[in-house]
Amino acid sequence: MPSINPERLLGDLYELRGIGTYKTGVHRPTFSADDIKAREWLASRMKHAGLAASIDGIGNVFGASAAPGRKILSGSHIESQNHAGWLDGALGVLFALEASRAISEDAATKQCGVDVIAFCDEEGHFGSYLGSRSFIGDVTEEEIDTAKDRTHGKPLRQALKDAGYAGRPRLLVDRNRYAGFFEAHIEQGGSLGTAKLKIGIVTAIVGLWDYRIKVVGQQNHAGTTTMQERRDAGLTMVRLIAALDKRMKELAGPRTVWTCGRMEFDPGAPSIIPGEARAMFQFRDADPVLLEKLEQNLKDMIVESDKAGPCRVSVEIIRQSSPAIMEEKFQQALEKAVAQHAPGLGVRMPSGAGHDAQHIARVMPAAMMFVPSIGGISHHWSENTSDEDIVLGARVFTDAIANTLIA
Amino acid sequence: MPSINPERLLGDLYELRGIGTYKTGVHRPTFSADDIKAREWLASRMKHAGLAASIDGIGNVFGASAAPGRKILSGSHIESQNHAGWLDGALGVLFALEASRAISEDAATKQCGVDVIAFCDEEGHFGSYLGSRSFIGDVTEEEIDTAKDRTHGKPLRQALKDAGYAGRPRLLVDRNRYAGFFEAHIEQGGSLGTAKLKIGIVTAIVGLWDYRIKVVGQQNHAGTTTMQERRDAGLTMVRLIAALDKRMKELAGPRTVWTCGRMEFDPGAPSIIPGEARAMFQFRDADPVLLEKLEQNLKDMIVESDKAGPCRVSVEIIRQSSPAIMEEKFQQALEKAVAQHAPGLGVRMPSGAGHDAQHIARVMPAAMMFVPSIGGISHHWSENTSDEDIVLGARVFTDAIANTLIA
Repeated sequence: MPSINPERLLGDLYELRGIGTYKTGVHRPTFSADDIKAREWLASRMKHAGLAASIDGIGNVFGASAAPGRKILSGSHIESQNHAGWLDGALGVLFALEASRAISEDAATKQCGVDVIAFCDEEGHFGSYLGSRSFIGDVTEEEIDTAKDRTHGKPLRQALKDAGYAGRPRLLVDRNRYAGFFEAHIEQGGSLGTAKLKIGIVTAIVGLWDYRIKVVGQQNHAGTTTMQERRDAGLTMVRLIAALDKRMKELAGPRTVWTCGRMEFDPGAPSIIPGEARAMFQFRDADPVLLEKLEQNLKDMIVESDKAGPCRVSVEIIRQSSPAIMEEKFQQALEKAVAQHAPGLGVRMPSGAGHDAQHIARVMPAAMMFVPSIGGISHHWSENTSDEDIVLGARVFTDAIANTLIA
Repeated sequence: MPSINPERLLGDLYELRGIGTYKTGVHRPTFSADDIKAREWLASRMKHAGLAASIDGIGNVFGASAAPGRKILSGSHIESQNHAGWLDGALGVLFALEASRAISEDAATKQCGVDVIAFCDEEGHFGSYLGSRSFIGDVTEEEIDTAKDRTHGKPLRQALKDAGYAGRPRLLVDRNRYAGFFEAHIEQGGSLGTAKLKIGIVTAIVGLWDYRIKVVGQQNHAGTTTMQERRDAGLTMVRLIAALDKRMKELAGPRTVWTCGRMEFDPGAPSIIPGEARAMFQFRDADPVLLEKLEQNLKDMIVESDKAGPCRVSVEIIRQSSPAIMEEKFQQALEKAVAQHAPGLGVRMPSGAGHDAQHIARVMPAAMMFVPSIGGISHHWSENTSDEDIVLGARVFTDAIANTLIA
């Protein structure tokens, strides 16, 4: 069976961390100078590994194996959130590269191929999963025309031109080439660490349903307007969210999560009754039936609050992604590899965060594997995973891919 | 008894509205060019009425009557909020001027004196009731040194210098000169209009107790952090404010008002669990015992929420003004005047908003009278009161002052 080279893997990870270093993390937003440098660096590492490397018209970095037969596609992304961690995405790309190398170097698997890919902009600086969605044919030229960097407003077209990628064709998946897709990632939560486990085997990437709730009342003087006269948008919103939170607890499944991440009162002055209140509310679960039920409850509660008065209450759907179920056989392959390298230290779990795998799962069987995040921290420069956990994760990941290829 | 001149009163009000006109309202923030023009205009109108007019070192415009004996002090303010109404403050100053003129013109009252005053910056562009507090000796030179315009940041010292008022002495109240203080004002709420009443006789200016509530939790990923692991500052704040609102309903008096005018989640993104939440909370009532009770409840609920975890919850007192009780004899004088001019159309009520009278009440007996605000609107350019209501109000106000002076 293939054997990974820990020094080579960690060396690559450290070298990539050296591009756009920020404290102990990195700042490599999509198509920043450091991000482009990182893409070119990755392509050269792919070539060095014997892969045919290319960067396509949306910025996807692709390394094609010359091995015959059906291959595994593996990868993640290499750009980062602003001033964020060194492993979010990068770990999955370099696990894929190390798996591809180790498998091509081993006598028993050298006829098997692993293609490596870094999907562009998983972190959403310009849009929503542009690289993986482009790869499955789900991004139009019009979407690219209108996309802008969320931080600086630079148009995506200009960014692609500045990077030198404009005019290149966009890579489209060849479904017949692949037996499936494997993505490794840091957990980004604290479940593995808390339970002292080492490997998360993802059962499904949850569906994320996101809403904007708006309450319209009547702005007024907070001293001269009696409680009876008021149409206080702020208090109406607070009562609604408190009741919604309570009801969510009753309806939720064991891994459902819900979040009110943003709340604003307008005009937001201490002595003015808010005339308008806005909140963002979302929930996530792997079960599409439960998601429907939670949405129905939300809508019912909005209608109820609106009818009860004295404010107008409404809700707008921002996004509704379908849960992506991971391939059962691949989960078994990962479990088998855990049993060999870290017996008893793996667990099946949903992914609460979105990943490129949820889009690739629409065109081929897909798998995801997590390694522990220290303290559950991600999207912050202090994000980290111990070298031991990284190496152990790479062993499990590579074996699972190898077993799938030779099965 | 004195008889007001409606054309003269309305003419003055319209002329003052012509200085700094904004739509149907005015934009005369303290020490703006138009505000200074208005102060000079007012001083000239005082002189024309036979009063000794002066503008002091803080911008108070004062018109002293030459009549012998104890006088009534009457007035309000003439600067406006930004892009606000034409009557807020101005009505009280010109009611005072008309009362002073009518009383000096009537045979039965011509030996009685009404001093007229426009206290500077009641609207708080540079501080808190600077004019009336200076007049009672409650403003230090240090406070003036540090005060800045809240919109543009211009230091008060510079503004006073630019206006030509720097270096002038600040007027200090001569308590022996006065039998008391009368202030007329628009209601700024909708109570009179809703009840089809014409005159509000203020029983007390409520105490305003203002707090900043802070919840500190743990910022985290809204997808990967289970509900059990979360320390969600936003939901903790929402639950607290909802429970507080419920409890306030149980504890409140018939005219207590409470407001959460501002709410912020940090960082305020849909997919990030808020690590911190901040809210402003205030309540107002005329009863100091009830205010104490409401504060104790607030503090108890904060401690309870903090103890219950998982977030740290704290509260900071921003301000606590004492309720100002209005003089009973003056209320009776106003009621007597209502009985004559508008029988059955007056009501005793607290003032939910703060006014200069609350500070003057600390050094002499004080009274306040309200006229209706159309639609309860104030601090907006559309603020208005019908000419009929203005004239009726001035008659009641003048008679009440005259009766007090000759009693």
